[in-house]
Amino acid sequence: MSNEIILTEVALRDGSHAISHQYTVEQVRSIVQSLNDAMIPYIEVSHGDGLGGSSLQYGLSKVDEMKLIEAAVSVSNFSKIAVLLIPGIGTIEDLKEAKKLGAKMARVATHVTEADISKQHIETAKELGMEAVGFLMMSHMAPVETLVEQAKLMENYGADIVYVVDSAGALLPHEVKERIRALRQTLEVDIGFHGHNNLSVAMGNTLAAIEEGATRIDGSVRCLGAGAGNTQTEVLVAVLDKMGISTGVDLYKLMDMAEEIVAPILPKPQEINRDSLTLGYAGVYSSFLLHANRAAKRFSVDSRDILIELGRQKIVGGQEDMIIDVAAGLANK
Amino acid sequence: MSNEIILTEVALRDGSHAISHQYTVEQVRSIVQSLNDAMIPYIEVSHGDGLGGSSLQYGLSKVDEMKLIEAAVSVSNFSKIAVLLIPGIGTIEDLKEAKKLGAKMARVATHVTEADISKQHIETAKELGMEAVGFLMMSHMAPVETLVEQAKLMENYGADIVYVVDSAGALLPHEVKERIRALRQTLEVDIGFHGHNNLSVAMGNTLAAIEEGATRIDGSVRCLGAGAGNTQTEVLVAVLDKMGISTGVDLYKLMDMAEEIVAPILPKPQEINRDSLTLGYAGVYSSFLLHANRAAKRFSVDSRDILIELGRQKIVGGQEDMIIDVAAGLANK
Repeated sequence: MSNEIILTEVALRDGSHAISHQYTVEQVRSIVQSLNDAMIPYIEVSHGDGLGGSSLQYGLSKVDEMKLIEAAVSVSNFSKIAVLLIPGIGTIEDLKEAKKLGAKMARVATHVTEADISKQHIETAKELGMEAVGFLMMSHMAPVETLVEQAKLMENYGADIVYVVDSAGALLPHEVKERIRALRQTLEVDIGFHGHNNLSVAMGNTLAAIEEGATRIDGSVRCLGAGAGNTQTEVLVAVLDKMGISTGVDLYKLMDMAEEIVAPILPKPQEINRDSLTLGYAGVYSSFLLHANRAAKRFSVDSRDILIELGRQKIVGGQEDMIIDVAAGLANK
Repeated sequence: MSNEIILTEVALRDGSHAISHQYTVEQVRSIVQSLNDAMIPYIEVSHGDGLGGSSLQYGLSKVDEMKLIEAAVSVSNFSKIAVLLIPGIGTIEDLKEAKKLGAKMARVATHVTEADISKQHIETAKELGMEAVGFLMMSHMAPVETLVEQAKLMENYGADIVYVVDSAGALLPHEVKERIRALRQTLEVDIGFHGHNNLSVAMGNTLAAIEEGATRIDGSVRCLGAGAGNTQTEVLVAVLDKMGISTGVDLYKLMDMAEEIVAPILPKPQEINRDSLTLGYAGVYSSFLLHANRAAKRFSVDSRDILIELGRQKIVGGQEDMIIDVAAGLANK
């Protein structure tokens, strides 16, 4: 267990989902300024689905993310600005533009079994002089050995850090432990963890990851993230402080900005409700929910049964047509 | 780790704090009925501070708790109704009355270092033919050895179960583990855990307790409890189900009642905000908050510094006069 953890705040990227990608320049400026004051080392700014995510399919951003990145860079003299890039949604050109605007870290995200599509993007990030992170999404969907292989690919492409990403909030502490432990035994680079709170264990999982040697952790102030939100950053800083682990972050300043700047922006608080719990329990992306609800009505089945079956079949984003098949199958039973 | 966990739902006792003790007979009836349908084994019904808690000091109940207990008993043919009793607030007479109305379990709660005041009440509960639980509140305030001694006292008085109670939501998973492990090595009776979510680890702590052999767990649907609320029952049932641990509870029914019956009652969602985080970080009772805020204004100090100092000095309920002393001391520094 390291006595120093380096945090990345994701409220301005993952949290973008929670506010339907409606961040304004003023909001980004005031959030980044206060995070910078609180000495948060990295702040991720992008559409919820990464650079280039603004679209009818993923949700249109209110403001061009490049403008938001520019605003973030302009008010942060301590915090480094990071961007998320999902190859296939974002492009190399997007990455170059973000770099030109002052972004210092590129987080290249792929499904846990598809690390090979990150090669070009990780290499480009390094050529541009950025820190490069490999971000293995839906990590609960692959066996530990596969996760390790995929992480190794990202390390080989030049990633400085590889993250275990629990996109659906479906992992439990003992599962996080075995994943981080296996990576720790195999990789040379730093290991990170990104949790979601759908099963109320974002913090428990984060502590489990740290116990096994993860040193890079994502959090979002006031849980501002997809599903039930992420590991709550200001709470994590308090917990790590109690454990004698340093983050370099000013706890009071972070608590104050969470309460005074972020909470008022939230359209609704990040509770674990029936929907977000179902997503974590089923282990599927939150984007499936609406489709599953529609199919449930059409075939008179419980949408939870659909989502659980989708999770069992390891259906991922892009395979939304399977939702009707699964619903029809359940109705025939 | 047991493959069977017995749950007690505390939304109608600890959750009473979250709604300022304003439960109506109709609300209790509909909540108990739906918990009973979902096969929750035990449901605690009492004022937030236990039997006899309705007072100007602790908050007046809207409806006499005996009426609420009677209503609960009248609609539960599966779930057993439990009551909480803090000696000094509630009396033996209150316990007898609750038993007469059909309560089957008495949970006798004391500060973690004051188990000796539970003797008469635990013995009476047993004489009345009730299950008796020893409930060691603010467990984070005592060293492990003291906790074990105090738990042993309760066991000797006849308690069927002894609970580690993290009243302030101040414990971390590794601290829960060492406490449950030590109790497991010493006690013959079942061990329980009651968590609060102020540091976002209610679920993480609960899983840590179960890993070390706790078999009785408290939860509250939709986190309805003091501070940031308790371990969220419907989420816990889902998590245990994923782990192959049986609770006997119908997950979908519990999710539905949480969403449709409990959520609409909540005056505000159970987020971790600046106040509840401060309480968990400081390790003090939520009742200190108002006093600390007043003292902070009067002496121009940060109320968080007051609360942290109170926690350091292990100040407990009844010692509220210390708050002014601490504030004045901080102002003089």
